[in-house]
Amino acid sequence: MSDNVGHYCGLFGVYGHPDAVELTYLALYAQQHRGEEAAGICSSDGSQIVRYTGSGLVTDVFDKRKLEQLRNPHAIGHVRYSTTGSSHYQNIQPFLAEYAAGQVAVAHNGNLINAPKLRHDYESRGHIFNTTSDTEVILHLLADPKIQNADDPLAEALRYLQGAFSLVFLLPDKVIAARDPYGIRPLCIGQFRNGAYCIASETCAFDMVDAEYVRDVVPGEIVTIDERGIRSRFFVDAKVRHAHCIFEMIYFADPASNVFGQNVHESRRAMGKQLAREAPANADVVIPVPNCARCAAQGYHEESGIEIGRGFTTSHYVGRSFIQPSQQIRDLVVKMKLNVIKPSVAGKRLVVVEDSVVRGTTTRGKMGALRKAGAKEIHLRVASPPIRHPCFYGIDFPDQKELIADGRTVEQIRDYLKVDSLTYLSLDGMLSCMTFPPESYCTACFSGNYAIPVDHQLTKFALERHQMKMFE
Amino acid sequence: MSDNVGHYCGLFGVYGHPDAVELTYLALYAQQHRGEEAAGICSSDGSQIVRYTGSGLVTDVFDKRKLEQLRNPHAIGHVRYSTTGSSHYQNIQPFLAEYAAGQVAVAHNGNLINAPKLRHDYESRGHIFNTTSDTEVILHLLADPKIQNADDPLAEALRYLQGAFSLVFLLPDKVIAARDPYGIRPLCIGQFRNGAYCIASETCAFDMVDAEYVRDVVPGEIVTIDERGIRSRFFVDAKVRHAHCIFEMIYFADPASNVFGQNVHESRRAMGKQLAREAPANADVVIPVPNCARCAAQGYHEESGIEIGRGFTTSHYVGRSFIQPSQQIRDLVVKMKLNVIKPSVAGKRLVVVEDSVVRGTTTRGKMGALRKAGAKEIHLRVASPPIRHPCFYGIDFPDQKELIADGRTVEQIRDYLKVDSLTYLSLDGMLSCMTFPPESYCTACFSGNYAIPVDHQLTKFALERHQMKMFE
Amino acid sequence: MSDNVGHYCGLFGVYGHPDAVELTYLALYAQQHRGEEAAGICSSDGSQIVRYTGSGLVTDVFDKRKLEQLRNPHAIGHVRYSTTGSSHYQNIQPFLAEYAAGQVAVAHNGNLINAPKLRHDYESRGHIFNTTSDTEVILHLLADPKIQNADDPLAEALRYLQGAFSLVFLLPDKVIAARDPYGIRPLCIGQFRNGAYCIASETCAFDMVDAEYVRDVVPGEIVTIDERGIRSRFFVDAKVRHAHCIFEMIYFADPASNVFGQNVHESRRAMGKQLAREAPANADVVIPVPNCARCAAQGYHEESGIEIGRGFTTSHYVGRSFIQPSQQIRDLVVKMKLNVIKPSVAGKRLVVVEDSVVRGTTTRGKMGALRKAGAKEIHLRVASPPIRHPCFYGIDFPDQKELIADGRTVEQIRDYLKVDSLTYLSLDGMLSCMTFPPESYCTACFSGNYAIPVDHQLTKFALERHQMKMFE
Amino acid sequence: MSDNVGHYCGLFGVYGHPDAVELTYLALYAQQHRGEEAAGICSSDGSQIVRYTGSGLVTDVFDKRKLEQLRNPHAIGHVRYSTTGSSHYQNIQPFLAEYAAGQVAVAHNGNLINAPKLRHDYESRGHIFNTTSDTEVILHLLADPKIQNADDPLAEALRYLQGAFSLVFLLPDKVIAARDPYGIRPLCIGQFRNGAYCIASETCAFDMVDAEYVRDVVPGEIVTIDERGIRSRFFVDAKVRHAHCIFEMIYFADPASNVFGQNVHESRRAMGKQLAREAPANADVVIPVPNCARCAAQGYHEESGIEIGRGFTTSHYVGRSFIQPSQQIRDLVVKMKLNVIKPSVAGKRLVVVEDSVVRGTTTRGKMGALRKAGAKEIHLRVASPPIRHPCFYGIDFPDQKELIADGRTVEQIRDYLKVDSLTYLSLDGMLSCMTFPPESYCTACFSGNYAIPVDHQLTKFALERHQMKMFE
Repeated sequence: MSDNVGHYCGLFGVYGHPDAVELTYLALYAQQHRGEEAAGICSSDGSQIVRYTGSGLVTDVFDKRKLEQLRNPHAIGHVRYSTTGSSHYQNIQPFLAEYAAGQVAVAHNGNLINAPKLRHDYESRGHIFNTTSDTEVILHLLADPKIQNADDPLAEALRYLQGAFSLVFLLPDKVIAARDPYGIRPLCIGQFRNGAYCIASETCAFDMVDAEYVRDVVPGEIVTIDERGIRSRFFVDAKVRHAHCIFEMIYFADPASNVFGQNVHESRRAMGKQLAREAPANADVVIPVPNCARCAAQGYHEESGIEIGRGFTTSHYVGRSFIQPSQQIRDLVVKMKLNVIKPSVAGKRLVVVEDSVVRGTTTRGKMGALRKAGAKEIHLRVASPPIRHPCFYGIDFPDQKELIADGRTVEQIRDYLKVDSLTYLSLDGMLSCMTFPPESYCTACFSGNYAIPVDHQLTKFALERHQMKMFE
Repeated sequence: MSDNVGHYCGLFGVYGHPDAVELTYLALYAQQHRGEEAAGICSSDGSQIVRYTGSGLVTDVFDKRKLEQLRNPHAIGHVRYSTTGSSHYQNIQPFLAEYAAGQVAVAHNGNLINAPKLRHDYESRGHIFNTTSDTEVILHLLADPKIQNADDPLAEALRYLQGAFSLVFLLPDKVIAARDPYGIRPLCIGQFRNGAYCIASETCAFDMVDAEYVRDVVPGEIVTIDERGIRSRFFVDAKVRHAHCIFEMIYFADPASNVFGQNVHESRRAMGKQLAREAPANADVVIPVPNCARCAAQGYHEESGIEIGRGFTTSHYVGRSFIQPSQQIRDLVVKMKLNVIKPSVAGKRLVVVEDSVVRGTTTRGKMGALRKAGAKEIHLRVASPPIRHPCFYGIDFPDQKELIADGRTVEQIRDYLKVDSLTYLSLDGMLSCMTFPPESYCTACFSGNYAIPVDHQLTKFALERHQMKMFE
Repeated sequence: MSDNVGHYCGLFGVYGHPDAVELTYLALYAQQHRGEEAAGICSSDGSQIVRYTGSGLVTDVFDKRKLEQLRNPHAIGHVRYSTTGSSHYQNIQPFLAEYAAGQVAVAHNGNLINAPKLRHDYESRGHIFNTTSDTEVILHLLADPKIQNADDPLAEALRYLQGAFSLVFLLPDKVIAARDPYGIRPLCIGQFRNGAYCIASETCAFDMVDAEYVRDVVPGEIVTIDERGIRSRFFVDAKVRHAHCIFEMIYFADPASNVFGQNVHESRRAMGKQLAREAPANADVVIPVPNCARCAAQGYHEESGIEIGRGFTTSHYVGRSFIQPSQQIRDLVVKMKLNVIKPSVAGKRLVVVEDSVVRGTTTRGKMGALRKAGAKEIHLRVASPPIRHPCFYGIDFPDQKELIADGRTVEQIRDYLKVDSLTYLSLDGMLSCMTFPPESYCTACFSGNYAIPVDHQLTKFALERHQMKMFE
Repeated sequence: MSDNVGHYCGLFGVYGHPDAVELTYLALYAQQHRGEEAAGICSSDGSQIVRYTGSGLVTDVFDKRKLEQLRNPHAIGHVRYSTTGSSHYQNIQPFLAEYAAGQVAVAHNGNLINAPKLRHDYESRGHIFNTTSDTEVILHLLADPKIQNADDPLAEALRYLQGAFSLVFLLPDKVIAARDPYGIRPLCIGQFRNGAYCIASETCAFDMVDAEYVRDVVPGEIVTIDERGIRSRFFVDAKVRHAHCIFEMIYFADPASNVFGQNVHESRRAMGKQLAREAPANADVVIPVPNCARCAAQGYHEESGIEIGRGFTTSHYVGRSFIQPSQQIRDLVVKMKLNVIKPSVAGKRLVVVEDSVVRGTTTRGKMGALRKAGAKEIHLRVASPPIRHPCFYGIDFPDQKELIADGRTVEQIRDYLKVDSLTYLSLDGMLSCMTFPPESYCTACFSGNYAIPVDHQLTKFALERHQMKMFE
C-alpha cells in the first residue's frame, strides 16, 4: 500500500532515567513510521511537567537546545499522523493540562468512538475544550469530581472510554500506561540495563534505545512506573474478546517489531506464502512493491518457487518537503519514491506483490511504470483482502467511496489497475497466518464486522451543540 | 525608563472587512511596543474560527503564507510581553476554545486578581486548564451552565472578574469588546471608510490602518459588532470610580496615541513642564533619555528655557536577537541601544530627563556614559514619582526589593546613580497634568493606594490544590 | 532624506585580540546604518583565513555558532548596501582569494571608477572574475607578477586605482588599511586597552567595542598592523587636494561619530543654524523629519528661536522584513516608519527640517501626513542643496531623471511636495559649516564638480567584451 | 559498503526547455545519492547567467521562490559530496565566472590530478583563485589568451587536463558537455519529448524527468547543444584505453541506471553470482546488507540456491540531520539506519552479502547486531576485492591506513569483523561481470594499477607558493 492513508500514532514513555528525554527522542525516531506529521515530548523533574511540540518529523521538531531545555528524568512522547484544519497546533500531543490534583500529560494512540458524546456531556456541564481531538475527553474525565472520588479514579475514568486507546500518562512523579480492553493498538513494556522501565508502541523503539522487551501491556491493564518500581492492575474485570488491529500486521508496524505476540516480518511472510497457495501465477519473477510488501513477496517467492527480483529502486530522500513543479511531469508522485530497474522486468511475466490497495491511484501508477519498462504480463497479488469499510479505531482511510474496492468487483479493479490478473488474499487465509485465534483480531475494514458496536447516533451530539445559546 | 519591565499587551479586532487579517497584522505591528515577545491572530469566516500564534515579533510570527491561510472577514489579534516557563507556547493569546455553545476566542490586556480563586473553584468542579494564564478563567466562566442560563451570559461572566481587563472576543459571527469598570487599561473603537468597525488598545493602531477613532469603550461596557452593526450595553449598573493606569501615560502608550482622553505626547510634555517648575536646575542643556523621555524633556526645556540638546543616538536595530559576546564589554546592553554624542555633553552641565526609573541599573549605565563623555554636572530629573509598590493590574515590575526606590531615600538613589542632583516629579504634580480628576487614575505603584482591594489570601488556592488526591 | 538610496559600506578590522571576531561583529552592528543588506567576516589564526558571509543584517547573518567557527585573533568585516541581480551572493564582501603569495581578503568602501578598464585589461590577459564588483580588480592587481615584483607591491597596486577606496585587508598574519589620496570615504584607527589596534569606517564602532580613537588613516596612507605593531607609509608622494564626501556629513554617518575631523551631529546642527539664517520662516514650531534631520532641526531651532516640537513617532521595528499587504493602504511605506503626533502639528505653522531630498516620494508622503493631521502651513527647509548629479564614488543615487531636483526649479519641487514654502541650504552655506576648507570636499552631487575627472569612455570596455571569441 | 566515504558528484544540464530549472531540480534529486552535501543550479535566459547554490540536500537548498527566480530555458546543476574547511561555500558548484569572452558556468564530476600544477602556473602569472577546488583551473584555462587564440579553445583547454572529468558547461546561449579521454566518470545524453536535449551523470535522472536516453558522451568527446541543435567533436584524436571507474558499478550508481553500457543492478547481480561460485557457504539463508548489497545478494542467492531472507529493516528517515545524544548508546550510527529482524537470523547460519568494505567499522557493527540477534554462524561475502589503494580520480576514501584491508590479511579482517568466514570477490571475477573488456576499467583502488600515471611531485607546487613575496 502506498496510497497516502493516515498512519497511526507512536508512543513512548520512560521513568527515572538520566537521559529520559534523549531516549524518548530516539524512540520516537524509531517509530517515526507511525506518524510523520507532528511530534511532542513532555518531561518532568518530579514536580513540574514541561512540554514542547511541533509539526514535522521528530528530527525537524527537536534540536539539541530544545532537548536540553526538556532535560528531565521522566518523559513521554508522541508522533502523530497528519492533522488538518485550523486547530492543528493545539492538537499535537502529548496534551498537558492542570486540574484540581495538579498537572497531567497524556499521549494517545487510537480513536475513542464515544468522545463526541463525552465531550457533549462535559460541555453541557460548562467545560471548555482546547482541541478538536478525541483524546481531550480523557483529561476531563480524570478531572471530574465524581471520578476523582472513586476508589481508583484512573480506572474509573478509563471505564468510560469506548474505542481504541493505548495511552501513556506523565504525572509529575509517575509514568502510567494503559490499554483498552480489546487491545486494538499495541503497547509494550521494556527495561533498560540500569533497571529503568519504559513503554512503547512497538518493540523497534526498544531496539533503538537498547532496552529489553519485557512484555505487552495487557488489554484492560494499567501499568504504573514510579519510584516504587512497576506495578499493575486492571480497570476491567471480565476479559472481553480481543480485537487486535490486523492492519498493524499488514502495513503499519515495522517489520522488525513484535506486535500482538508475533514478529511483523514473519507474519507478512506467512501471508505471502498463503497468497501463493491461494493465488498461484504463471510467471517468471516475483516483484515486491517497496517497501512494505517486501516481506509478503518473500513469502510468495518461497512458497511458489518463482524467483524473486528487484523491480524498483527506492529514494532515500522521500518524505522531505518536495516542491511540486509547475510543469506536468506524469506520475511524479510515484517517481519521487521509486524507479523501475528495467532489466528486472523487461520482457518478463511478473507476479507483483502488494501488501494492500486503498485508493489504487499509486498502485496504478506503479503498474503503469512496470508496463512502460517492458513487463510482458503483470499478475498483481495483494497480501490482504479488499478494503471496503471505514475504520473507527484509528486508521484514517479515505472516504468509503474513494476506496478502490468500494462497489467494484475484483475484475473491475483489475481493469482499473490495468493488470493481467489480480487476486486478493482471502480473509480466512490472512487470519490463518496470525498467532492468536481469528476472533482475536479486528478485521472490520475488510469484513465490516466491528468488534465494538458503532453507534451512528454519536455524531448527533456535535450537531446539537449549536442549538445552545451563544452569548453576544 | 529603560529597565526591562514587562510591557502590557496590545489588542485589535475587526469585523466584516475583506482584509481583516492583514489589517490585524498591521495594527499589531503598530502596537508592537505593547508586547514584543509573542503574537497571535484568530479569524473567522462566519462559522469557523482558526488560530495561529507564535513567539517573537509580529513580523517574525507571520508571513504571507500564514496570513493567507488565516484570510477571513473577522479577526482579533494580540501581542504580549515575555512569558517565562515551560507552558510558554500554550500561553500565547488569543486563546481559542470550544464549549457547549460553540467556539470562542479571547484576547486580554490586564490582570485578573481573582483568577486563582476562580480557577480553584472550577478545578474543584472538575474543569481542566491548559495554560497558566489568568485569562483562561474567562472561558470557563462563559462555559459555566449557571452563567449560560443567565439573561446575559457575557455580562454575568464579566461581573465575576476582579482586576484589569480590556478584552476582545471573536465568536464565529461577531467581534465583542469589553472593559473593566475601572477602565484600567485603554480600549477604543475605530471605523474604516467602508463602514466596518474595529477595536484597538491604542489609537496609533487606527492611524496605521487608516481607520478613524470613534470613541473609547467605556469602563463597564460591552460593545458587540456583527452583521447588525454595532451596539452597546453595560455589565455593571453603578458607575464606579475609574482607575486609569497612570503608567500608560508615563511610559507604555505610543506618543502619537490618544489614551484616557488625551494625547500621550502632550501629557508627557505637560509632565516635563511641571517637572521644570517643581525641580529647576542650573544647567546648560536638557538631554532627553531616548526614546520615551523625549516628550517630557521637551516640556522641561520649554518651561525652563534651557536649551534642549541631543545627547544620545539610538540604534535602529535594537530588539533583534543579539548574540551576547563571551567577552566582557562593559555596559554592552546600554551600548547596543544608544551611544553618546560627545560634543553635546562634554564640559556641560546637563539636565537629564528620564520618564521613570525602575531598577536603576540601565539609568546608572547611561549616566556613566554621559560622565565618561565629559559631562561636567548631571542633574537627573524624573518625570514621575519613585516606584515603590507592586502592580497587580498588569505591569510586570520586578520584585519590590529590586526596585531602586524600595527602601531608599532619593539621596541614596542619587548616590547610587552617581548624579549631582536628582528630583522626581511629585504625585500631585503628575496628576495635575492629566485630563481627568486625580481620583480617576490608579497610582498604586507610586502611592500604594490600590483602586481595587487586593486580597492577599488569594494565592492560598494554588497551595491547596496539591492536597487533592492524584491518581496513579 | 528618507528615500531609499543605497547606503555606503562599513568596514572594521582588528589584529591580535582574543575576541577579534566578536568585536568585529559588534563593530559591524554599530555601523549597520552604512549597509543593511549583507554582512561578512574573514578571520585568521595567523596562517589560514576563513570566511563567512550572508545577506541581511549582521544579527541575521551571524549566530553564536558561526562566530565560534570563525574564532581567531585577527579579523576584518564588512556591511554593505543592497545588491541586485543574480550574482548577489558572490558579491558579498570581504572577498577572499588565493594567489601566488598566499591568501588575501579585502573589504572595500567606495567605488573604483576605472574598475571596468582594469577588469577589461585583466580579462584580455586571461584572468577570470567571480563577481560583478569593482573591488575584485584590487585582488587581480595584487596578484599581477608585474606588481608583485615592485618594491612595494601593495603601494604599486593602489596607485593603479582611480576613485574612492577605503580598504581593509586581511592577510594570514596582518591587517592592513589604506585610503585613497582624496580621502573620499572615512577610515580611522582605534586602539583597545590591551594595546591591540583596530580600523573602522566610523568612530561609533570604537564606542561600541570600547576602543579609543587614535587618528584617521590619512588619504594616500597604508597602515599595517601585525605582530611588530603598527606602522605607516604612503603610496602617493604628492599631496593631492582632498575630496571628502560631503554626503557623509549630511546623511550617512552616525551623529555620534567623528568624521573628517568633526563631529557629525555638530556639523549637522551647524548646517541647521546656517539654514535658519539663509531661510527664515514665519512659523510656530520646528518639526524634524526623523531620524536623520533631528540634528539640523535642532540647529534651526537654536538659531531661529522657533520652538522645536516632536511631530513624528518612529517605529522601533523598521527594517524587518515586512509583508506588503495585498490591500491598498495609502502611504503604507511611510506609515510603517513613522506616525504623526497630531497635537504637535494641528493648527500650527510648521518649519519642517529635512536633511536632503532625493526622489521626493517619501518626503511628499510625510508632508501629506502632516497636512492630514491638521498642519496649517508647512515650510520645508532642506539642510543641503538640491541633488542634481550622479555620484561615481559610492552613493547609489537613483537614475538622474528620478531625482526630484533634476530639471525642476525649486518652485516646481515645492509644488510637487505640496508645501507652502521650500528652501534648500546653499552650497556655500553648507561648506561654511565644515572644518576643512571648501575645496577639501566633494560636492559633485550638488555642483557637478567631480574631484576626479570621470572618463565617460570607461564603460565601453564592457561592450567590447562580447566581440571576443566565445568557445562552443 | 556503509562506511562514510565521500560520494561522487552528480551533473545535469538542459538547453531550450521552458521548465529547464525545475527539470534540473528534479534530475538533481534523482541523483542525490551522488552527493548529499551541497547543490547548485545556474541558468540562463540566452544572454545572462544567474546562479544559486547552498549546502544540504537539493530539497533543502531550493524552494519554490528560488526556482522561480532562476526560471530560464537553459540550466545546469550539480550535487556534491561533503566539503570541509572554511571555503566551503565558495566551493559549491556550478562555478560561475566572467572572462574576456563573457560568462561561463561549469559543473564537474571527477578529480583533476594536475590541478595543483596548473594552479601554480596560473598563480605565478598573477591569476587569483576563489576556491580550493581543482575545478577552478578549468575556468582559468578557458580564459587564457593563449588558449583563446587556439582554433578550438575549449578542446585546447581540455587537453591540458589530466585526471577524471565529466563536465557540463553553461554559456549564455549553450550547454556543453565533455568527458575525459579515459571515460572515468559516466556522462550521458537524453532527449525530451519536445526535442530538447539534456545531459546527466546517470540515466536515472532521465527516468525522473521523462527524458529518453540517447547515448553516452564518448570519452574524449565535446557535445554542444544550442539553438542549432546538438553536435559533437573530439578534443583528443587518438583513442586511449578507457578506464571506467569500477566503483560506480559496485557502489555509487543507482541500481536503476545504465552506466558504462550496462545496467547497474544487473552488473551487481552478476557479481553476486560470481561470488557464490567463488565463495560458496554452508548456510541457511542469504542476508543482504541494505541497501546497496541487495543486488549482489540476489545474485548470490540465485547461484547458490540458498534462500534469501530479509535481515534488516532500513529507516526511511536516514540522512536528516540527527542530534547526537550525549548519552552513550552503543552503535547508534548503525541503529539510526537499520534494525535487525530477529526471526530472520536467530539460530540460523547466515551468508551475509556486502558490496564492499572500507573502514570496516560499520560492517563490524552490523555483524555484531546480527550476532546479538542470535545468528548461529555469519559467513560474510563481499562482492568486490579488498580496497587497499587510494583513488586519485574522485572517490574520497579515507587515508590508506584507515582502510581495513590495508596491511591486513583477509584472516585478520575476518577476526576484526568477528565473523565465522570471510571471502572477497576476486579481481578477475569482478571484471568478468562487466560488459567491456577488463582493461577498460580502472581498478586502482583494488589493484594499485592507475590508468593515468600519478605524479607524486604534483603536491610540491602548493608548498612552493609561500616562498613567494607577500605584500605588507
